[in-house]
Amino acid sequence: MSFRIEKDTMGEVQVPSDKYWGAQTERSRNNFKIGPAASMPLEVIYGFAYLKKAAAFANCELGVLPENKRDLIAQVCDEILDGQHDEQFPLVIWQTGSGTQSNMNVNEVIANRAQVLAGGAIGEGEKVLTPNDDVNKSQSSNDTFPTGMHIAIYKKVVENTIPGVVQLRDTLNDKAKAFEKIVKIGRTHLMDATPLTLGQEFSGYVAQLDHGVKALKNTLEHLSELALGGTAVGTGLNTPSGYDVLVAKYIADFTGHPFKTAANKFEALAAHDALVETHGALKQLAVSLNKIANDIRMLASGPRSGIGEIILPANEPGSSIMPGKVNPTQCEALTMVCAQVMGNDVAVTVGGTQGHYELNVFKPVMAANVLQSAQLIGDACVSFEKNCAVGIEPNQEVIQKLLSNSLMLVTALNTKIGYYKAAEIANTAHKNGTTLKEEAINLGYVTAEEYDEWVKPEEMVGSLK
Amino acid sequence: MSFRIEKDTMGEVQVPSDKYWGAQTERSRNNFKIGPAASMPLEVIYGFAYLKKAAAFANCELGVLPENKRDLIAQVCDEILDGQHDEQFPLVIWQTGSGTQSNMNVNEVIANRAQVLAGGAIGEGEKVLTPNDDVNKSQSSNDTFPTGMHIAIYKKVVENTIPGVVQLRDTLNDKAKAFEKIVKIGRTHLMDATPLTLGQEFSGYVAQLDHGVKALKNTLEHLSELALGGTAVGTGLNTPSGYDVLVAKYIADFTGHPFKTAANKFEALAAHDALVETHGALKQLAVSLNKIANDIRMLASGPRSGIGEIILPANEPGSSIMPGKVNPTQCEALTMVCAQVMGNDVAVTVGGTQGHYELNVFKPVMAANVLQSAQLIGDACVSFEKNCAVGIEPNQEVIQKLLSNSLMLVTALNTKIGYYKAAEIANTAHKNGTTLKEEAINLGYVTAEEYDEWVKPEEMVGSLK
Amino acid sequence: MSFRIEKDTMGEVQVPSDKYWGAQTERSRNNFKIGPAASMPLEVIYGFAYLKKAAAFANCELGVLPENKRDLIAQVCDEILDGQHDEQFPLVIWQTGSGTQSNMNVNEVIANRAQVLAGGAIGEGEKVLTPNDDVNKSQSSNDTFPTGMHIAIYKKVVENTIPGVVQLRDTLNDKAKAFEKIVKIGRTHLMDATPLTLGQEFSGYVAQLDHGVKALKNTLEHLSELALGGTAVGTGLNTPSGYDVLVAKYIADFTGHPFKTAANKFEALAAHDALVETHGALKQLAVSLNKIANDIRMLASGPRSGIGEIILPANEPGSSIMPGKVNPTQCEALTMVCAQVMGNDVAVTVGGTQGHYELNVFKPVMAANVLQSAQLIGDACVSFEKNCAVGIEPNQEVIQKLLSNSLMLVTALNTKIGYYKAAEIANTAHKNGTTLKEEAINLGYVTAEEYDEWVKPEEMVGSLK
Amino acid sequence: MSFRIEKDTMGEVQVPSDKYWGAQTERSRNNFKIGPAASMPLEVIYGFAYLKKAAAFANCELGVLPENKRDLIAQVCDEILDGQHDEQFPLVIWQTGSGTQSNMNVNEVIANRAQVLAGGAIGEGEKVLTPNDDVNKSQSSNDTFPTGMHIAIYKKVVENTIPGVVQLRDTLNDKAKAFEKIVKIGRTHLMDATPLTLGQEFSGYVAQLDHGVKALKNTLEHLSELALGGTAVGTGLNTPSGYDVLVAKYIADFTGHPFKTAANKFEALAAHDALVETHGALKQLAVSLNKIANDIRMLASGPRSGIGEIILPANEPGSSIMPGKVNPTQCEALTMVCAQVMGNDVAVTVGGTQGHYELNVFKPVMAANVLQSAQLIGDACVSFEKNCAVGIEPNQEVIQKLLSNSLMLVTALNTKIGYYKAAEIANTAHKNGTTLKEEAINLGYVTAEEYDEWVKPEEMVGSLK
Repeated sequence: MSFRIEKDTMGEVQVPSDKYWGAQTERSRNNFKIGPAASMPLEVIYGFAYLKKAAAFANCELGVLPENKRDLIAQVCDEILDGQHDEQFPLVIWQTGSGTQSNMNVNEVIANRAQVLAGGAIGEGEKVLTPNDDVNKSQSSNDTFPTGMHIAIYKKVVENTIPGVVQLRDTLNDKAKAFEKIVKIGRTHLMDATPLTLGQEFSGYVAQLDHGVKALKNTLEHLSELALGGTAVGTGLNTPSGYDVLVAKYIADFTGHPFKTAANKFEALAAHDALVETHGALKQLAVSLNKIANDIRMLASGPRSGIGEIILPANEPGSSIMPGKVNPTQCEALTMVCAQVMGNDVAVTVGGTQGHYELNVFKPVMAANVLQSAQLIGDACVSFEKNCAVGIEPNQEVIQKLLSNSLMLVTALNTKIGYYKAAEIANTAHKNGTTLKEEAINLGYVTAEEYDEWVKPEEMVGSLK
Repeated sequence: MSFRIEKDTMGEVQVPSDKYWGAQTERSRNNFKIGPAASMPLEVIYGFAYLKKAAAFANCELGVLPENKRDLIAQVCDEILDGQHDEQFPLVIWQTGSGTQSNMNVNEVIANRAQVLAGGAIGEGEKVLTPNDDVNKSQSSNDTFPTGMHIAIYKKVVENTIPGVVQLRDTLNDKAKAFEKIVKIGRTHLMDATPLTLGQEFSGYVAQLDHGVKALKNTLEHLSELALGGTAVGTGLNTPSGYDVLVAKYIADFTGHPFKTAANKFEALAAHDALVETHGALKQLAVSLNKIANDIRMLASGPRSGIGEIILPANEPGSSIMPGKVNPTQCEALTMVCAQVMGNDVAVTVGGTQGHYELNVFKPVMAANVLQSAQLIGDACVSFEKNCAVGIEPNQEVIQKLLSNSLMLVTALNTKIGYYKAAEIANTAHKNGTTLKEEAINLGYVTAEEYDEWVKPEEMVGSLK
Repeated sequence: MSFRIEKDTMGEVQVPSDKYWGAQTERSRNNFKIGPAASMPLEVIYGFAYLKKAAAFANCELGVLPENKRDLIAQVCDEILDGQHDEQFPLVIWQTGSGTQSNMNVNEVIANRAQVLAGGAIGEGEKVLTPNDDVNKSQSSNDTFPTGMHIAIYKKVVENTIPGVVQLRDTLNDKAKAFEKIVKIGRTHLMDATPLTLGQEFSGYVAQLDHGVKALKNTLEHLSELALGGTAVGTGLNTPSGYDVLVAKYIADFTGHPFKTAANKFEALAAHDALVETHGALKQLAVSLNKIANDIRMLASGPRSGIGEIILPANEPGSSIMPGKVNPTQCEALTMVCAQVMGNDVAVTVGGTQGHYELNVFKPVMAANVLQSAQLIGDACVSFEKNCAVGIEPNQEVIQKLLSNSLMLVTALNTKIGYYKAAEIANTAHKNGTTLKEEAINLGYVTAEEYDEWVKPEEMVGSLK
Repeated sequence: MSFRIEKDTMGEVQVPSDKYWGAQTERSRNNFKIGPAASMPLEVIYGFAYLKKAAAFANCELGVLPENKRDLIAQVCDEILDGQHDEQFPLVIWQTGSGTQSNMNVNEVIANRAQVLAGGAIGEGEKVLTPNDDVNKSQSSNDTFPTGMHIAIYKKVVENTIPGVVQLRDTLNDKAKAFEKIVKIGRTHLMDATPLTLGQEFSGYVAQLDHGVKALKNTLEHLSELALGGTAVGTGLNTPSGYDVLVAKYIADFTGHPFKTAANKFEALAAHDALVETHGALKQLAVSLNKIANDIRMLASGPRSGIGEIILPANEPGSSIMPGKVNPTQCEALTMVCAQVMGNDVAVTVGGTQGHYELNVFKPVMAANVLQSAQLIGDACVSFEKNCAVGIEPNQEVIQKLLSNSLMLVTALNTKIGYYKAAEIANTAHKNGTTLKEEAINLGYVTAEEYDEWVKPEEMVGSLK
């Protein structure tokens, strides 16, 4: 491997010649060998690309950066957003907690790449852009990193999480409608209870996801607030007047999302409650999804010795000698995601509590956890929808058998023959292991015709959907 | 102790004669000796009192309960809400997960107390009310307990948590204004940074609490949805038509809060995501409060060998030989509350994931944790406000000393004498342990007059608040 | 209510005349109105009583406290341990994080009660004991509170938690032996799998609890280390030589548990990793118990439309018209406890991270959570054992039916007729909803006699227990 | 990209021709597009390689696998362990919760690679090994995955975590010794307190890590228990007699670690409390490390306006104009790791609670989180040791100044001039902002010589280390 020499205020550093990064990135690589390389999420880097471009435009418009520098910066940012430089960002989450080193990584890559775009060679001749003075102009790590992470997370939530959850929600809603006339036994405390329809059961899942999406959307406004313009401690030192509002406008334009400058920059640097808030809603979705996936695998359990009221699509070979053993693998993947999100919530919470004075230095770990949760929930919902939910079918035979066997239907006789006779029928059937109908007739309280006329589960499921 | 005999379908039970509860309550007392007695929060019991009264009114209006029974039920409920029967609810959180036994506790107490109010004696003569048929009419444990806990939590959040947080927020805002001209050293990474005002620092705390209160309010709508009317599995079996909407209206009337019937009763019984959602916002507040309280105790540390920029009120004797040792005890109480709330969040989350089929049976543990968090945050904010925040004073002498000693002010010279000379001044001062001004003059780069004119921290704090 | 005047270095305070506490306790009552009164666990107070008595003996033996004072202190401590003064400790968890105020509460109560025991009146005449100089001699809040909490938690774990868990473990072990010949269908992924015995299933629960108890016992040594003797910052300032070892010996004698002085007092004041460690093991037990209780309620689900392989004791009336609906209420109480313990673990963890310099000031919240978890696990195990586990019975009929219906038994034919024919039998039975035996005969691959001879589930459960 | 056709019982699948994996791996790739590809930790794959080789040896020794197949399997396993096939394992954590698909991934890669090693071509001619019958012989996913994860985690803890923590512990211990005579002000509640030595302060950190390592080692025995031999449900169906003990012996031989067969295979499949236990100890270490890193950055804060008692190595350029601004970046990385580990603990805990019947299907998420925590703690300790701890130096001047300014030293005069005069000195100094010595002399209570003789902080730090 060949190297070139890069310098910073501490001296010289050897950097791989085929990389655009500079001295500060390389120092961070060497000083933070913690976990796998390049763990800093690319989404954060892309967030930086948006904001560096926006800062260049705002700086230019406000007269502190010439147009040619603006355009060079913008060009590299566009390349980064196009995915052309993904391998130029080797740093890890576990670096300085302000993310300074990733900010410098972006600054260095933009400056050196611009050198090449301008026809120069890295480290030779006059620098067309300097990382600190040009690319980082009117900025500080302390306001860029939180801006980058807000952009990354907002986009992830809006472009990945919500569409994924909604896709699943819509399919479950289709199922709720398709199953609205399938009467089945209800279960409370895991025990047999009065009937409801399979559609009603699924409608509860839909309602959970509707509430969850709404809760998640409620968090977007806080997340849309950008720290940029606060610079080092929130006072906006070294920024031109009007910069904070303008740069947010450019970010909104470039991303197509309604970002705005944070009303209070001190909060925006020293606290990341917006991430705590968003992750709280992601965790709520995890709670909902865990319930849904768990119910579905219990309803599908069997095929012979479980509940077996619904049938899941068979996506993988079950045991070759055990036909019908369709493991609920999508439920398992989804509930594992839920466990992860619940854990991530604590990491985000702990990080959120630990801001000190003017800066919270748990930014990278918070950002990484929120991004992971947002990604996993979105992806897992899509996977679950495509490979499981859409193919769920009722096992009408089993549903009917479990329903008609149930002793709970005796409730329907209360108003016809009185509570005590009804209870006697149920007790006898339970003791003898027989059906209600058999014992109702045996005991001479009703005829078979009366029983069939009076005991109609479909009339016990109410007018509620 | 004397006893009377109460009966249920399993037979006879001895109940203390001076208590209104009946057989099912007593069985629960005996079968669940887990932790201290009577741990089920009284707020939940009061929630039940509201809903039992509302159910009586709705049942009466819909023609299924006579007026005299309605009025008896209402009278006992009013007594309960008046705190006259607090000792009648001995059950623990750690009972059946549907809270059935607490529902029966309330039903039994209402029925037996009504017997006495009607001039009868418990267990003698005809029952004026039966716990199941009258008091529990058109209800099930499965829809009453979630209704009772929504009422309890909604009230607690609106009547205790939010006012407490707002009280603290307002005082911090007063401080932010009072301190708006006090320029001080900023700190990032715990290290000296560029200056800001003490008011700006406090304004960040205000912004955090504003966001937190807003997030908490966002959760109220979900919480205002009541399960009542869903009965056993959500279908509303055994309720008169229109009951669910009507009973919610009565609850809204009686409590003065905008409760409404849940749009989907299956969700309202089988999932308690509304509690997860509300507690998520409480946890966010805990995160914010932890940051604020921690900052304040660090800023107040000393008196000699710490930061010491602010002075907290002395509420308790410090060490008798150590004047000025004012321990930040309110900060400590508040941050301990925050730790508890972060823990409670996991208990609520875990409980929330574990609904099965038509019922979540982690209701009591979820309700108890949300109520505790809501209470503790409200109370701790008031305590912190009254006993600490309101009395915070700046230590102007220390603030000034730490500010003027700072090497960071050299930034102001950049535009006057250039970056390199400014850096040389700072480096020399750091090496020699001297001030910037001394070295600036020694090095011959500026005169004393120029230094004083150019290095003005108050001009480095921006126009931002 | 009548009051007397108590004084401290800040002046006078009104204290209820019927209480032994003094000025500092009263100030704390007034300054920390957070949550219900007297939330500081009595177990911690009792821990203080042990240590105050031990300190008196050690101080006396080392010549710094006269015998008469030692004996007075000891007498009051014995009264406290006898439960005679429970109402004298009104303070809350949410006070100063060092627990100073509870230390002073104990000191004040001992001094004032001693005044009365010595024939005096509180606040009159010469003080027979002073709270600070005599009762608190050779002590600081900073070493007494951690000592008190270690004593409290050690005792709780050893006297309540472990016996409770072992009681349940032994009963489950009895069941494992009683059920060792009951062959049943196994389930993986909630789906039918190869058979095992019901006893084997229960033996897994026993193994979990054995591991859990072992893990919990592993934490006792750290917990047995006492901070006492470290005084204010861990250096032991103001203690006589040999005091730390001697006072620990007295505590060991008085409690009957192997307490010893902490090897490093700085760790013992500034960190409470011992509590984190112990609670980690409690949380592990919660994980195990959650699995066990959840399995048991799923196995008992039904009675008609669930799994129904085991029958739980009926402790409370089920629905009056639904015989056999025995809700798994003990499982529910136990799993709610598990959820609480998982939450408490985070509170303890967060508190544990936040020691600063020479002192961790999250002591009360950590102690309270560990004590609650230890109590709840112990109590819930006993409740579950007595009211559920001991009465668990197999439903042999259901077990046999689900086993013989299973398609998984076809595995046994592989070695007789070959894999492909066996698979054909299973596939056909699955498609037709018939039994393996029927299709095996229909297809002409085996006779009924051969089938019965070859397909013996009891030979598929291995020699493993 | 070119493809070949692979088959399984569900039909044909296109697989990239340059990959060794087969149909089941490819199906999993397509069905679980959740998060980044190949997230299943390679360490688990390597654990599989050990166990597949060990199984081959045990099967051969017990007569159920020919030597040539054993040797082929072993050869491929050795190649995998040599890192030659890392790109052959593309599956994600978020697959089936039993890890079946990763087991099949390993089986398929071994079989196809063996085909090539034997001179054949994949998919052509007779298979030299079949994935299910040969490579997976005497195994099931249900016992291999837990075995693979135990091997992976045990190795990670013993080879990475413990050495990393011990490396840091030893350096901190060196510092404790080097600093043992440096007397400094103590701090409790963040407030000035009596003195101790800097060495004593560091000795507390050492004690924390000693306890943490001991707690972690306590968990190794449970972790050393291997499920292998339990097969599908724990009964050991389809394994030759003696296989479980023998295969564990081979694994112990091949890895050099004391693995043994699990005493109870039902526990080993259905519960993963061993992982909960190990992660509990990792979390305890995170708690300790968080305290240590936080203290160190607070002690190093400044350089002018903080505490500044110690100096950290400068590893990266601070602000170019702010000499001496050495951000505590290693502290930040380490505390971010701690936050992650605290979060991971909840993910592991939640996963651990959710075993159902004979199988826990949260295996991959549990394994991944434990591995990540073990890796991060080990790496971060090494990084912190090398780049921070080893270079920590006391700032003697600051230490001395803060010590001598302290009012707390007045304690030393108590025994010479009495408590009241000492307090008067301290009070006066506090009020006037002067030193104790000045006021002691001013007030005429002591001479300068007496003061210097009597007030010796170095005699206040005790004989304790």
